[in-house]
Amino acid sequence: MTGPYLIISADTHAGLPTERYRAFLDRRHHAAFDEFLARQDAMAEARKDLGLQNEEFAEEWFGEHAEELRAGWDAARRDAELDADGVAAEVIFPDADAVSATTAAPFGAGLGMVGADYEPELALAGAAAHNRWLAGLCQDSPERRRGVIVAPIVGDVPGAVREIRRAHADGLRGGIMIPSMWGEGERPYHDRCYDPVWEACAELGLPVHTHVGAAPRHELGTHLGLYVTEVVWWSARPLWFLIWTGVFERFPALRFGVTEAGAWWTGNLLWQMDVAYDREHGTRKLASFGEHMRRRPSEYFDAHCFIGMSTPKRRELAQRYEAGVGNLLWGNDFPHPEGTWPHTRDWLAHAFADIPVDESRAMLGLNAASVYGFDTAALAPVAARIGPTPADLGQDGADTTLWDVPRRTGRHWLTGPDVPAVIGRPL
Amino acid sequence: MTGPYLIISADTHAGLPTERYRAFLDRRHHAAFDEFLARQDAMAEARKDLGLQNEEFAEEWFGEHAEELRAGWDAARRDAELDADGVAAEVIFPDADAVSATTAAPFGAGLGMVGADYEPELALAGAAAHNRWLAGLCQDSPERRRGVIVAPIVGDVPGAVREIRRAHADGLRGGIMIPSMWGEGERPYHDRCYDPVWEACAELGLPVHTHVGAAPRHELGTHLGLYVTEVVWWSARPLWFLIWTGVFERFPALRFGVTEAGAWWTGNLLWQMDVAYDREHGTRKLASFGEHMRRRPSEYFDAHCFIGMSTPKRRELAQRYEAGVGNLLWGNDFPHPEGTWPHTRDWLAHAFADIPVDESRAMLGLNAASVYGFDTAALAPVAARIGPTPADLGQDGADTTLWDVPRRTGRHWLTGPDVPAVIGRPL
Repeated sequence: MTGPYLIISADTHAGLPTERYRAFLDRRHHAAFDEFLARQDAMAEARKDLGLQNEEFAEEWFGEHAEELRAGWDAARRDAELDADGVAAEVIFPDADAVSATTAAPFGAGLGMVGADYEPELALAGAAAHNRWLAGLCQDSPERRRGVIVAPIVGDVPGAVREIRRAHADGLRGGIMIPSMWGEGERPYHDRCYDPVWEACAELGLPVHTHVGAAPRHELGTHLGLYVTEVVWWSARPLWFLIWTGVFERFPALRFGVTEAGAWWTGNLLWQMDVAYDREHGTRKLASFGEHMRRRPSEYFDAHCFIGMSTPKRRELAQRYEAGVGNLLWGNDFPHPEGTWPHTRDWLAHAFADIPVDESRAMLGLNAASVYGFDTAALAPVAARIGPTPADLGQDGADTTLWDVPRRTGRHWLTGPDVPAVIGRPL
Repeated sequence: MTGPYLIISADTHAGLPTERYRAFLDRRHHAAFDEFLARQDAMAEARKDLGLQNEEFAEEWFGEHAEELRAGWDAARRDAELDADGVAAEVIFPDADAVSATTAAPFGAGLGMVGADYEPELALAGAAAHNRWLAGLCQDSPERRRGVIVAPIVGDVPGAVREIRRAHADGLRGGIMIPSMWGEGERPYHDRCYDPVWEACAELGLPVHTHVGAAPRHELGTHLGLYVTEVVWWSARPLWFLIWTGVFERFPALRFGVTEAGAWWTGNLLWQMDVAYDREHGTRKLASFGEHMRRRPSEYFDAHCFIGMSTPKRRELAQRYEAGVGNLLWGNDFPHPEGTWPHTRDWLAHAFADIPVDESRAMLGLNAASVYGFDTAALAPVAARIGPTPADLGQDGADTTLWDVPRRTGRHWLTGPDVPAVIGRPL
C-alpha cells in the first residue's frame, strides 16, 4: 500500500510539426498537402477569431517551454518529460500543439475532425500519415506507449476499416479515435453502416474513442463561451448512441471511451438513462426502448465503456462512485497547457490527498492498464524509479472516512436511497 | 408557517381538440388546415414509429380519465381538477394531449416545433389560432391562469413580434414559448436578428420559455432512448446561448426559463460555465469570453433565468442549492400522464416531506408568483380552500437538519469548498 504508484496517462498528445508529415504521406497527395500547408496561416487566423488563442499566454507558454515541447515528437525528450512528471506510460492522441496548432496532421485528421467537413479520401490519407509516424514513435520505449489510431470513419467505412487494420498491423495498440461529430447530413453512429468498424475493433481489441475538440462552429459563431460549454456534450454524444441502439449487444467485445471531456456529467447521464429504462413514472406512456436493450444502460456502461477523465477536478472525484471508480482513467493531457504537465506531482497531491489509495491506484494507472493491455510487470521498474508514493501525495494518515457514505451509496437509484450522497468538507 | 400552501403549477397544458381550432384560424388558412387535418393520421403513425406511444398505456389512460381530460379545454372542468390536485394557479403551455396528440394546434405550432421544419406563415397562423383560443380560456378564473403565447420566432421575426404584441394585448400574460431548436440552416439565438423579440418581451414583461419536446429526429431515428436522453439538452440549449452572448446585457429586463426539462443539469452547467469564465487552469490558454460578459454566468442566471422543473425527482431537490432555491418552479404538468395529476398531493408528500417549509413555499408557488406576476392576495382564498398544509405533506416535525451543510455550501465553487455537499440519508 505504500509503494510507488504505477501512473499511466490515458490522455497525451503527439504529432510532428505539420510540414514534416509530408514524408509519411502517399506521394499522390503531395500536391493537396501543399495546398493544405498554404492554408495554415488562414487557419491560424480563424482560430484566433474563434477565441481559441490567447496571444499573451501563447508567448509565455512557448517562451518558457520551447525546448521541452519538442517532446511532442521526440521520443527521448518525451520519456524525460514523462519521467519528471512521474508518468510511467501513456495513451497517445494526435495534435501535440493545442495552443497554436503547429503539429496538425495533414488535412485536419486530428482532434477537431467532423465527418461532414472533410473529404474522406484526404482525411484517410492524413490519418494514415499520422498513424505511420506514430507507430514509429511507439517503437521507442514500447512498454510505455499505446498509440491511438486516427480513424475518420465517416464517409468511407471500408477505407477506414482498411486503415484501422493496417495501423494495427503496424503496431498501434491504443485503440482508434473517431470523429466525435458525424456532422449534418452524414449518417449517425447508430447506423448499421458503421458495423464493420465496430466489428474490426472488437476483433482486434481496439477501444474506440472520441476525444474532446469538435463542436458545431457554424452554430456557435465566435462565441467562445458557447464552445467551452458545448464541446463536452458533442464529444460524449456517441456514448449514448452506442448504448441505446444495441451496438454493444451486437459486438460484445467492443469497448468505448470518451477522453478529455471530464467525468462530471457521467453520474447524471447514467441516472437519467437508467430511470428512463426502468420505466419510472415519466416514461410509462412511452413504448419500448427496443428488444435489443436487454440490460440497464449503466450495465452496458460498466461492461463496455470508460471515461478518460484526464485531469479531474475535485468536484468530479467527489462524484466518482456514481461513474464507477473502475471506469475512470486519469490523464495529464501532456503536453497541452490545460493539462497538469509539467507539475503533475503537485496536481496529484492536490486532487488525490484524501482519496483512498486503492481507488487512486485504479484511477491513476490500473484501469488504463486493463483497458489498453499495458504490461504492468514490464512497467514496474519504471514506476519504481519515477512513481510518486502515497506519502508523496499526502495520503499517509489522510482521513478517508468522509467517503464512507458516498462509497456505500454508489448509484443511489440502484442501491436504495432516493438522493445522492456526495459529502464534502463541512463549511 | 403552518397555513396552507399557495401552490402554483408553472407547467400545465391546454389545447382544443385539433379540428376545433378552425374557428380561431384566419379564413385564408382554412384550405391549408384541411390538408393539415388530413395528415393527422399519418402523424399519429409516425409518433408510434418513434416509440412515443405505448398502446396499452394509452388505452388505460383514456379509459380511466375520459371525462377529466376534457379539462384540457373546458375551464370549469379545469378548475375542478386543479382544485382536487391542490393547485391554486397555473402557467399554461400548449398541447393538452401528450399521449396521442389529439389537441395539436394547427400546423404544428406546439411543443415540438423546430424552426427549420415549419413554414413561418403557417406556423404563425397556427400559433395565433391557439393564442386566441387560450386568451378566452384565461378569461375564466383569470386570477388563476397565465397563458403562454406560442411564438414561432424562427423565420419571420417581425411577424412573430406582431403576434406577441397582439396576444399580449389580447390578455395573455404567461410569457412566450419559442422553438427550443432553431434547426439546421436557421439562425441561432445569438443572432442579432432576434433582438426585436427579446426587446418586445423585456418591454412587455413577458418571460421567454423553451419547453421540452423537440429533438433532432433525423439523427435519432426511431431510437426512443436517444430521444429521452437528448431532449433535455436540446430544450435547455438556448439558455446558455443567451447567457454567453450578451443578450441579458442588452435587455436587462429580459427573463428566460426552461420548462419541463428537469433541474438536474443546472448545478453542473453553472459550475462549468463559472469556472471557465473565471479562467481557471483549463481555460487560461483561451482568449476573452467577450467584452459583453461583465459578470459570471451564474450571476446572469440568478438575475434573469428560472427553471420550470415541473415534477422534481428527489435527486434534483437534493441538489437545489446549486441551482438556487429561488430559481426553481414546481409544476404538475397537468394533464399529462408523466406529471403528478391527479395524485399531486401524494407526490408532494413524497418529494417534499423533509424539505424546509420556507423553501417549499418558494418552489411550490412564490417563485412562480414572482416570475409571472400572480396576485397572491387574490389567490389567497383559493389557497385557503384547496391548498395542502405542511402537515399534509408530512413536514411537521420533519428533520431538516440533513440539509444544513448543503445549504451553507450552496455553490461550492463560489463559497470555498472544492467539493459539493449533497447529503443523503445514510445507508
